[in-house]
Amino acid sequence: MKTRTFHDLHHGERPLLLPNVWSFASGAAMVEAGFPAVGTTSLGVAATAGKPDAAGGTRAETLALARGLARLPVPVTIDVEAGFSDRPEEVAALAADLASWGIAGVNIEDGRPGGVLAPPDDQCALITAVKAAAPDLFVNARTDCHWLPGHTAQTLDRVRAYTEAGADGIFVPGLAGETGVRAAVAATHLPLNVLFLPGGATFDELAAMGVRRVSYGSLLYRTALHAAVVTAVEGRAPAGIPTYDDVQRLVSA
Amino acid sequence: MKTRTFHDLHHGERPLLLPNVWSFASGAAMVEAGFPAVGTTSLGVAATAGKPDAAGGTRAETLALARGLARLPVPVTIDVEAGFSDRPEEVAALAADLASWGIAGVNIEDGRPGGVLAPPDDQCALITAVKAAAPDLFVNARTDCHWLPGHTAQTLDRVRAYTEAGADGIFVPGLAGETGVRAAVAATHLPLNVLFLPGGATFDELAAMGVRRVSYGSLLYRTALHAAVVTAVEGRAPAGIPTYDDVQRLVSA
Repeated sequence: MKTRTFHDLHHGERPLLLPNVWSFASGAAMVEAGFPAVGTTSLGVAATAGKPDAAGGTRAETLALARGLARLPVPVTIDVEAGFSDRPEEVAALAADLASWGIAGVNIEDGRPGGVLAPPDDQCALITAVKAAAPDLFVNARTDCHWLPGHTAQTLDRVRAYTEAGADGIFVPGLAGETGVRAAVAATHLPLNVLFLPGGATFDELAAMGVRRVSYGSLLYRTALHAAVVTAVEGRAPAGIPTYDDVQRLVSA
Repeated sequence: MKTRTFHDLHHGERPLLLPNVWSFASGAAMVEAGFPAVGTTSLGVAATAGKPDAAGGTRAETLALARGLARLPVPVTIDVEAGFSDRPEEVAALAADLASWGIAGVNIEDGRPGGVLAPPDDQCALITAVKAAAPDLFVNARTDCHWLPGHTAQTLDRVRAYTEAGADGIFVPGLAGETGVRAAVAATHLPLNVLFLPGGATFDELAAMGVRRVSYGSLLYRTALHAAVVTAVEGRAPAGIPTYDDVQRLVSA
């Protein structure tokens, strides 16, 4: 049910604005704030555990978080980096587990530890394997062509290849600028997901370019970390922060 | 070495201002900001995991966080709630484990799940058992007389009792107002710890009353959660937030 809703949210009147969270409480807080779905940020999950992002070492933390977030009343999509394994069948089994817990979607990226891109055929095989193991799961195929230096020329080929491989959506983090965004939208019939970039195109502008999903990536996590440091250093809390009881209530829901 | 430093920080020229963190990265960020020591917030640890605070159910999460924070170059003190066990020997073994990892201190509270206070003799026996098992660990004995309703009249008796039981410091969260703070300071030769309460006495005022340690409790955690929600809803990030690379650097230290 939540999974069906999540697919539908990519085809509504407005694009889906997805807050990326790193903990149960941050997810519950986004639901309380009215967001109809939440995603995760692998940077936030990794940094919380004291590990580097995108290094493939946070499988246990990611699964523990997914199990918790599955309790939320809204659809949840999990950033599984490159799947935490070189073996497509293991990634497919992971996706099937997530689906069985009620998770609605995953992000699977073609970036690999060390800052290289997987060969397109390998990534297509991975996407196909995941969809075969978890047919209802919304598989958001992420290409890191704009994230890692020197690969932007491959973007549209990868968008097309992952579309043909059976993905449900395409994510190009770092893609910005109307020409590039419109070209990616035109290259696929699937919903295109881009990152919200402060100072860049607004949500409405991205919507007008044909983007169907806008996610915050690590921005909310980095904002949270910053706010804690500022309050600690200045010894002055902003107005409106939740009380102790508010937080206790978030986790009891 | 860090443990010795932590004891000394309670006897410096100024009180120790302790930021309470809930994750490795939040701890590392406080070190980067210049804090000479960090503590943890049990609310933040519990809410991160989607569990209620002060219910005794976050032993594993607390220990995992402690193992991570022990990597930091500054002393770390861990909020172990009431010790996650009814058996003093188990709490003592937990404290010894923490000390063996390089953790400098613990907070042990007399509040018990369900909002009741432990009998003073039981709490004194617990403090004595912990000190016997981990003699160098800074044991901050917390009394929840001002935290739970209806117990404020017991405060000074408990301050005295925990002092005699061998604690290294006394923590009275919720204690506010010059008369009460000065009375608690006068009731013990140990460093007195109170919470920083927004809108209440300033750090300098607390210092002038004789307080030796001021901690943020869950305030920084609640501020962080709030900032993430505000940014998500408003679609606008504050200036000065750390970059992706900044966060990656925090965890690689």
